[in-house]
Amino acid sequence: MDIPTYEDVLQAHARIRPYIHRTPVLTSSYLNQLTGAEIFFKCENLQKVGAFKARGASNAVFGLSDADAVNGVATHSSGNHAAALSFAAGRRGIDATVVMPHNAPATKKAAVQSYGGRILECEPTQAAREAMLEQVIGETGADAVHPYDDPRVIAGQATCALELQQGIDHLDAVVAPVGGGGLISGTCLTMSTLSPQTRVYAAEPANADDAYRSFHAGEIVRQDAQQSVADGLKTNLCPLSWHFVSSFVSDILLASEDEILDAMYLTWQRMKIIIEPSSAVPLAIILKNKDLFRGQRVGVIITGGNVDIKNCPGCK
Amino acid sequence: MDIPTYEDVLQAHARIRPYIHRTPVLTSSYLNQLTGAEIFFKCENLQKVGAFKARGASNAVFGLSDADAVNGVATHSSGNHAAALSFAAGRRGIDATVVMPHNAPATKKAAVQSYGGRILECEPTQAAREAMLEQVIGETGADAVHPYDDPRVIAGQATCALELQQGIDHLDAVVAPVGGGGLISGTCLTMSTLSPQTRVYAAEPANADDAYRSFHAGEIVRQDAQQSVADGLKTNLCPLSWHFVSSFVSDILLASEDEILDAMYLTWQRMKIIIEPSSAVPLAIILKNKDLFRGQRVGVIITGGNVDIKNCPGCK
Repeated sequence: MDIPTYEDVLQAHARIRPYIHRTPVLTSSYLNQLTGAEIFFKCENLQKVGAFKARGASNAVFGLSDADAVNGVATHSSGNHAAALSFAAGRRGIDATVVMPHNAPATKKAAVQSYGGRILECEPTQAAREAMLEQVIGETGADAVHPYDDPRVIAGQATCALELQQGIDHLDAVVAPVGGGGLISGTCLTMSTLSPQTRVYAAEPANADDAYRSFHAGEIVRQDAQQSVADGLKTNLCPLSWHFVSSFVSDILLASEDEILDAMYLTWQRMKIIIEPSSAVPLAIILKNKDLFRGQRVGVIITGGNVDIKNCPGCK
Repeated sequence: MDIPTYEDVLQAHARIRPYIHRTPVLTSSYLNQLTGAEIFFKCENLQKVGAFKARGASNAVFGLSDADAVNGVATHSSGNHAAALSFAAGRRGIDATVVMPHNAPATKKAAVQSYGGRILECEPTQAAREAMLEQVIGETGADAVHPYDDPRVIAGQATCALELQQGIDHLDAVVAPVGGGGLISGTCLTMSTLSPQTRVYAAEPANADDAYRSFHAGEIVRQDAQQSVADGLKTNLCPLSWHFVSSFVSDILLASEDEILDAMYLTWQRMKIIIEPSSAVPLAIILKNKDLFRGQRVGVIITGGNVDIKNCPGCK
């Protein structure tokens, strides 16, 4: 298992900087008052392709040698990673093929197409995604860029916490959502190097609680076909992300579907930013566990803003 | 007529800085591609109280001597200025009374109340607002802080273009909405001093086109009870704002109600930020007048984000 290092994170940041936004860190007096914490929101919904995934994908694509890049890149993803890989490949001028579950949100499919990515649809299970991706790789010779089980991707996602940490004096805690675990792994990698006393919490939908179960079982627990409004968080941990989660995460906290949608809508209304349901899970768990965060300086990673506003349950 | 100077703007900026956010300037590759311009969005929807009005109100409130502040402040406003004045008064620990049209959006009334302001409702006409405000001033001795016909307010609003200009190398044009004209006046004041070659455009709803008519008539044309989805832009110019509009604005461009809502929704979806209809008028006029802005570096002031998302026409 190839575990990325902090040196990889610094290299990733230098490599991707020309292609990504340095996203703002926003605060809200209202949410601080409501939670009793001082929250610093790192707004990756304002990132290229509307999600932090632009970081990992760009690091993988721009780290390829010319010889390796020539056959393009491929991946499977429920959405944002697919768009991000298409975006990064487009910037480099190489092909991107993405395997997507046929029930992925229409906005996310459209995003892939708008960046020039080729979509192959599959059944909405982890097994179906992986099988079809293997077939694509065999046929095209493309470089597989897994959405999270890839040290280049984790080093790229780690640059998000790096920028957050650079802008803020001291953080008692950082909260990020956990799906497959790429972002939380990168967050652990950065924070354990730069600020080991900062606690890292993973926020997960109760409806897709494989990471929570894994954390308490002491080994990876896989759950297939998980369903949640937080569509980016339905995937399972992999050995690489489990390494970081099991070594560095202080706790994994769960939120219900209603709590996630309430936190999402509250963020839209009070912070004036569009965040997707997956991004609302950290605020949902802070609102639910106020005693844990009261009086603390808390970094929250807002992971993305790709949501069909007119058809989102939170908007009805 | 007491015309604010650039020195007043610098004093205002120093005075209000502890109470306001330095809001980010965001860009969107997608909107650049769509318009053919390079647009820099100054995001005052992410400002305190969700609108640039926090600037002018804070400048007026914190510029008062202790003796003048003791009777509190009062104003009339369709919404954001009312909330902003209540916010600033609350920070200083003095009373704020606001006269609002009874049909002002519920979210804006709630905002005033959440900041501790006292609301007095009136008929939705300019005359009714002004009469009731005069009565309040007579009864309380409060300092009247007009939403735009006040040099302290205009100097405060001018700090928005000041920050925009500080962050960007060169701007060919700046576009801001025009209602009563406080923001466009402040924008003219700053840009005519710092970058006189930058053209300033005012964006106005075709349904509330008093500034457009004034501009072409060469004198103030008042229109009462104007109706537009851009509820912040229904007010008329005053002699002070007419001074700036007539002296420094290059042109006033109009957008229809549908064009405004389309631009608003496009901004929500692509930039992942919530903006209110009034804030979408600049993008609407850029989309409508592409030849005018193609190839140019254009600053746009996003004025606010206070909109009832669930009940907004753009969301249906």
